[in-house]
Amino acid sequence: MNAISEAKKGNAGETVRRVAREEGVAEETILAGLVSGRVVVPKNSSRAVEKPCGIGGGLRVKVNANIGTSREAVDPEAEYRKLAAAAEAGADTVMDLSTGGDLNAIRKAILARAGVPVGTVPIYQAAAAAAERRGRIVEMTAEDIFSAVEDHARDGVDFVTVHCGVISRIIETLRASPRLMGVVSRGGAFLLEWMLHHGKENPLYSGFDRLLEIALRHDLTLSLGDGLRPGCLDDATDPAQVEELVVLGELVRRCRAAGVQVMVEGPGHVPLDQVEANVRMEKALCDGAPFYVLGPLVTDIAAGWDHLACAIGGAAAAAAGADYLCYVTPSEHLSLPGEEEVRQGVVATRIAAHAADLARGNPRARARDRRMALCRRRRDWEGQVENSLDSQSARRYLKTTGEENKDYCSMCGEYCSMKILSRRIPLRDS
Amino acid sequence: MNAISEAKKGNAGETVRRVAREEGVAEETILAGLVSGRVVVPKNSSRAVEKPCGIGGGLRVKVNANIGTSREAVDPEAEYRKLAAAAEAGADTVMDLSTGGDLNAIRKAILARAGVPVGTVPIYQAAAAAAERRGRIVEMTAEDIFSAVEDHARDGVDFVTVHCGVISRIIETLRASPRLMGVVSRGGAFLLEWMLHHGKENPLYSGFDRLLEIALRHDLTLSLGDGLRPGCLDDATDPAQVEELVVLGELVRRCRAAGVQVMVEGPGHVPLDQVEANVRMEKALCDGAPFYVLGPLVTDIAAGWDHLACAIGGAAAAAAGADYLCYVTPSEHLSLPGEEEVRQGVVATRIAAHAADLARGNPRARARDRRMALCRRRRDWEGQVENSLDSQSARRYLKTTGEENKDYCSMCGEYCSMKILSRRIPLRDS
Repeated sequence: MNAISEAKKGNAGETVRRVAREEGVAEETILAGLVSGRVVVPKNSSRAVEKPCGIGGGLRVKVNANIGTSREAVDPEAEYRKLAAAAEAGADTVMDLSTGGDLNAIRKAILARAGVPVGTVPIYQAAAAAAERRGRIVEMTAEDIFSAVEDHARDGVDFVTVHCGVISRIIETLRASPRLMGVVSRGGAFLLEWMLHHGKENPLYSGFDRLLEIALRHDLTLSLGDGLRPGCLDDATDPAQVEELVVLGELVRRCRAAGVQVMVEGPGHVPLDQVEANVRMEKALCDGAPFYVLGPLVTDIAAGWDHLACAIGGAAAAAAGADYLCYVTPSEHLSLPGEEEVRQGVVATRIAAHAADLARGNPRARARDRRMALCRRRRDWEGQVENSLDSQSARRYLKTTGEENKDYCSMCGEYCSMKILSRRIPLRDS
Repeated sequence: MNAISEAKKGNAGETVRRVAREEGVAEETILAGLVSGRVVVPKNSSRAVEKPCGIGGGLRVKVNANIGTSREAVDPEAEYRKLAAAAEAGADTVMDLSTGGDLNAIRKAILARAGVPVGTVPIYQAAAAAAERRGRIVEMTAEDIFSAVEDHARDGVDFVTVHCGVISRIIETLRASPRLMGVVSRGGAFLLEWMLHHGKENPLYSGFDRLLEIALRHDLTLSLGDGLRPGCLDDATDPAQVEELVVLGELVRRCRAAGVQVMVEGPGHVPLDQVEANVRMEKALCDGAPFYVLGPLVTDIAAGWDHLACAIGGAAAAAAGADYLCYVTPSEHLSLPGEEEVRQGVVATRIAAHAADLARGNPRARARDRRMALCRRRRDWEGQVENSLDSQSARRYLKTTGEENKDYCSMCGEYCSMKILSRRIPLRDS
């Protein structure tokens, strides 16, 4: 049972039916997207996903929340609470990026608790295992890496980030066009360090066929990581980043030939005037594969507000065609997020995704905004709270002029423009 | 002494010199902008403005914060605290939109306390006076309106919003192309109601020469209000809005002929795919006059988070050429903001403005982000806090792994990609 091979036969299983229903599109649309590779439905064949989702062209823009321990902050229960917070705030997927504690146990617990597709970065586990057993990350073996991928797939992980595009020839590019920030992807840095130390090619590239074989066996979706994404605005859209994207395009075609679901990850730190170019470049080089962007952050100086800098970039990217936004929380660059930061990160990114859905003409998104506008016109405060993307925050700020008179708010008071002209100039209702 | 006539003579006074210095551009650039009308420097000839600013093409994108009482919330001291919060957070200008209490006293107090240019909407005062003296806003006279403008100019107000483009023929447009939300600008609604009641043209349009005369006498900058801005996404870029903009373009040319500084206000609620078009339309129809946008909000359902929806729209608008962003606070649509909401609104909008400055290639903005990137690379946490646009928030989230070892943060811990490759691959410093 593999999503693409079933789609080729025209078979919509329960997952595809559910995704089509959630999107309000025909099942055939999802099937055609799977066949062309423009849509992925990340779901491990061995896992039951309560709320599956489709990611790609023509569908609602999706939002991912990262959770997970670090070496310095190992509190699995806290991560499970963040998982619940992310789900409650409406994340479409979560990724477990744990690097501290009992990684196998944490991953299994998250898979058991999550109702949405779950992604991981197996290289973190391979690196942690090497550091533990052999004292240094660089002592990791190719076998460690593939074993980690295999373990994750067997446990039911729905998609994995694999930094296959960090290949040897790009090291020369990094030397020829030095960066301000170097390599900021942890997976990318582990692999580059390993390649430099051992003088060998990236195992995830040289052994890509093995990856395809594991993916096919478990119907694991590959998310081709951008190990060379820029870590500051100055490094955006530089030769190393673009060269990696060219490699990822080649690997997308190999995935498609093998019948493996694939998406492509993107930056990162990108000035607003380069965001659209980054999206169009991915769509062109990777034959329309779903584009999963981390941010992008449109400035480096928004520490404490990176969820907002990410919402600006994410909305622009998704309006230009990116399909899937990885959230950033207000504590990005400064500390692991807590539950409240997870909540804020998800809400901020969902607003960005929704703004892009509206820009892309998604009819359900437009209908929702229309309902909100009608509630506003009618001074229906309860309706406004209900129709808000984050009702909790809306309710917090709502102050009408008292229970007995809710016909205007404390902002404009009786000078309510909605009331002044309501009988003078006709309005429409749809 | 009038800024434009002095600029035509090539005279840079203290204000122009200061603005040029703050921007890092030549005085001649500011003078040329004033002469062409592509730049305004709002400053009443009778007022000393501690921190004047230039608004327009080639300059840093500016941010305005609205404060002021409402009929239901009259606490002048609270407004003065909001003024201080806005200034501390870095607002370039403030507008006093008070509609409740002793409007003259509040305005004078704000003018005395503000170090930045101050704007007002005199029609609010004319309406309040009419309601008080004659029982109904609609009993306001043309004389009330011009007297209010005159009073504000005499008090030292630097710029006023005047809804001159809400003219009779557009009433037919509103009937022919009905809106979902109608007219959401309070000034626009007051005037339309008055025009319909009395069957007369908008006094601010028919008496525009009188407005020009007042403006010239006090070197008051006119901000041509968008009384017909859309109040929901469905109404964006509709016939009434565009028709008003055509009228504003005509009035821009009359201002320029009279030597009066003028800028143009814009929407409002606009889907992301129409933001750039709105900016280009204003620049074309209004001969490059500085564009002052309220938001734009890119979705209607972000109640409680409208500062973020506004940051998305504001960044996109300013990257496309808008010059001046009016903030929106998290309590927009729900209640008057408090001090904390004012602070958040200013910070969010400044991040949007900065993202646009980067996109527009502003060299100082790029240098600042580069400094931040270098602090990140060096794990210089104090430097990161200092270089953050909102140091207060950055510090709140910062958790390093202890005083004794600040060489990595609690997010990635020892798996710091910055450290891993630092000796392997050369970096650049500028």
